[in-house]
Amino acid sequence: MRDTNGQLGKAYLKDYIVRATPLLKEFLEKEKTEAINDKLGDIPLKLIETYSQLVSEGKGIRGALIELAYKACGGTDLERVLHASIFIELFHTAILIHDDFMDRDPFRRGIPAVHKTFEGIGKSLKVKIPADHYGNAVAVCIGDTGFYYSWKVLLDSGFAPAVILDAGKIYADYISRLGLGQALDLSITGAAKVSEEEALKVLLLKSAEYTAILPMKIGAALAGEEDIKRITAIENYAKCFGWAFQIQDDILGLFAKEEELGKPVGSDLREGKNTLLMIRLRKLGNQAQLEFQQKVLGNQDATVADVERMKNILKDSGTYQHVLDLGWKYTQEGTSYIPQVTSDKKIQEILESTIYYMMERTK
Amino acid sequence: MRDTNGQLGKAYLKDYIVRATPLLKEFLEKEKTEAINDKLGDIPLKLIETYSQLVSEGKGIRGALIELAYKACGGTDLERVLHASIFIELFHTAILIHDDFMDRDPFRRGIPAVHKTFEGIGKSLKVKIPADHYGNAVAVCIGDTGFYYSWKVLLDSGFAPAVILDAGKIYADYISRLGLGQALDLSITGAAKVSEEEALKVLLLKSAEYTAILPMKIGAALAGEEDIKRITAIENYAKCFGWAFQIQDDILGLFAKEEELGKPVGSDLREGKNTLLMIRLRKLGNQAQLEFQQKVLGNQDATVADVERMKNILKDSGTYQHVLDLGWKYTQEGTSYIPQVTSDKKIQEILESTIYYMMERTK
Repeated sequence: MRDTNGQLGKAYLKDYIVRATPLLKEFLEKEKTEAINDKLGDIPLKLIETYSQLVSEGKGIRGALIELAYKACGGTDLERVLHASIFIELFHTAILIHDDFMDRDPFRRGIPAVHKTFEGIGKSLKVKIPADHYGNAVAVCIGDTGFYYSWKVLLDSGFAPAVILDAGKIYADYISRLGLGQALDLSITGAAKVSEEEALKVLLLKSAEYTAILPMKIGAALAGEEDIKRITAIENYAKCFGWAFQIQDDILGLFAKEEELGKPVGSDLREGKNTLLMIRLRKLGNQAQLEFQQKVLGNQDATVADVERMKNILKDSGTYQHVLDLGWKYTQEGTSYIPQVTSDKKIQEILESTIYYMMERTK
Repeated sequence: MRDTNGQLGKAYLKDYIVRATPLLKEFLEKEKTEAINDKLGDIPLKLIETYSQLVSEGKGIRGALIELAYKACGGTDLERVLHASIFIELFHTAILIHDDFMDRDPFRRGIPAVHKTFEGIGKSLKVKIPADHYGNAVAVCIGDTGFYYSWKVLLDSGFAPAVILDAGKIYADYISRLGLGQALDLSITGAAKVSEEEALKVLLLKSAEYTAILPMKIGAALAGEEDIKRITAIENYAKCFGWAFQIQDDILGLFAKEEELGKPVGSDLREGKNTLLMIRLRKLGNQAQLEFQQKVLGNQDATVADVERMKNILKDSGTYQHVLDLGWKYTQEGTSYIPQVTSDKKIQEILESTIYYMMERTK
């Protein structure tokens, strides 16, 4: 465990959001205007607005990683890469909307999830289909739309066509795998027996690959990077980054404060998510602890006291410390690849601090 | 009304399917192999298989229109355009899977809809979430995956990067609008009051634009077409084509035989779809007929006798004939643009016969 701080990384992400948000807003305002001109009616407008609100509350990690990888590879058109990078934030918000419907999550980023918001609207519209189904269906519609918004932004980014094509191929390849990973996740979530291999595969696809490897490879592609050694170093760094991100995400899901988390503490537990904490507890817990895990994981009615007891079990069994150590191990390993990623000292510092920040963040 | 026949068009579509299906199968087999190598487990494999079965039972209209427009614009790389064209069939199957979930359609192309198939699988897996929700969620997953499969195919098609970029921009633009159109459709389906403008807008987005204008503009883009006059003629032809297609689709939804339709006759009626028949009946029906329409449109419990009565009302009120005439009007208007689309006599004949076939088809 290193006594460092991720302040520089934290500041970089914040600065990225400050620069990216107006571009996201501008793009979605333009889409909204087109929808108005198209006379698409109130609901599509309201969907775009809801989506726009959500997209501007993201952490910006993926977009910032595109930009960082681009800079690390010597890319110099910083305005263009910023414009291009927001495509992943548009995608990310869209897939979260789908995920929240799939996971039946009522909240996201501290506000009602899109499917819940539109369930309410469906009721007031008196649609003939059940209001919850209406909410789910239109949430999927705006997610689908968001996927294609993201493509619009990437294809319109103004890089050389061959470069955009390379980036787009990486994007299409990883996301088609992500969709299958989500189906696997849904299938093993709350299942009586979960193979560790499948649970780790889900985490790999949904965290390391999607959150870090995909954006950083795209950043490198947009810089026209062809040096296999550097691309491999970027992938290695990104894989560690993704794991550190996911481990802290899993920890925060139980150990953060609710007001920072933006959704109820223990949501993952109630939904039956096979987080790394849950996977490791199966190895490190005693019989009584495992029986409690079996009882509470995937139990939508788990109480606040149940969640507290699970937190104690994770600490008592050594699982919490084990997973925390693993997060720091990935952080340090990730850091070790940085010299091969770039020789630019300033970018090196940001890459180092950002991966540390993944473990240090409190939300 | 012209005494012609769409046999040449019918044969062209059939031939397209014969040529496209092996490519679709080959692509999805490769994806399946990758999923196996990736150890994604049984469910993603089963999803790919279900998707593959569905994609190979399509009518191939959209893919064939890409190819026809490409040829009409003088494109010569026929093998390449065939490979590229299947992207729209991959997309189409994916969006149908989403639509069937949204519309709660239990059948598609004569077999259970994907969400229903996986509801059954969810039950046998004993997933902790309700099996119907599980079916819906994984159906959305394979749809999402299919969108990105379609991008893989388009971006990998081997045309010049700038040409692919042009095609991709058209694709992203139209489909982001389609997603909003679907949300509008869900909002007005079964609503007590429906504005004719909104109902026609939905039909425009979901039929004319998506089914014909989008694929034909992409075919022209892949041929590198830049002549605005020709592109406009293609758009005009395609718009008429799309309306003829949609009108016959609406008619068949009530007047076809169930075994040809692949789903129960009257599904549109029970779901409350504002087809052109329903929109026009509001203008042409007498009070008793409109009261019956109000009662039965969007009524999931409408009986076979109700459907029969609606068919009689549509005939008695003149609505059926009015809409049929409109379909033929579009067909003839569409035909009138063909000389500006291409001077190639053979392609002209196929374009003419194919638009006639849209109205003549029985399924």
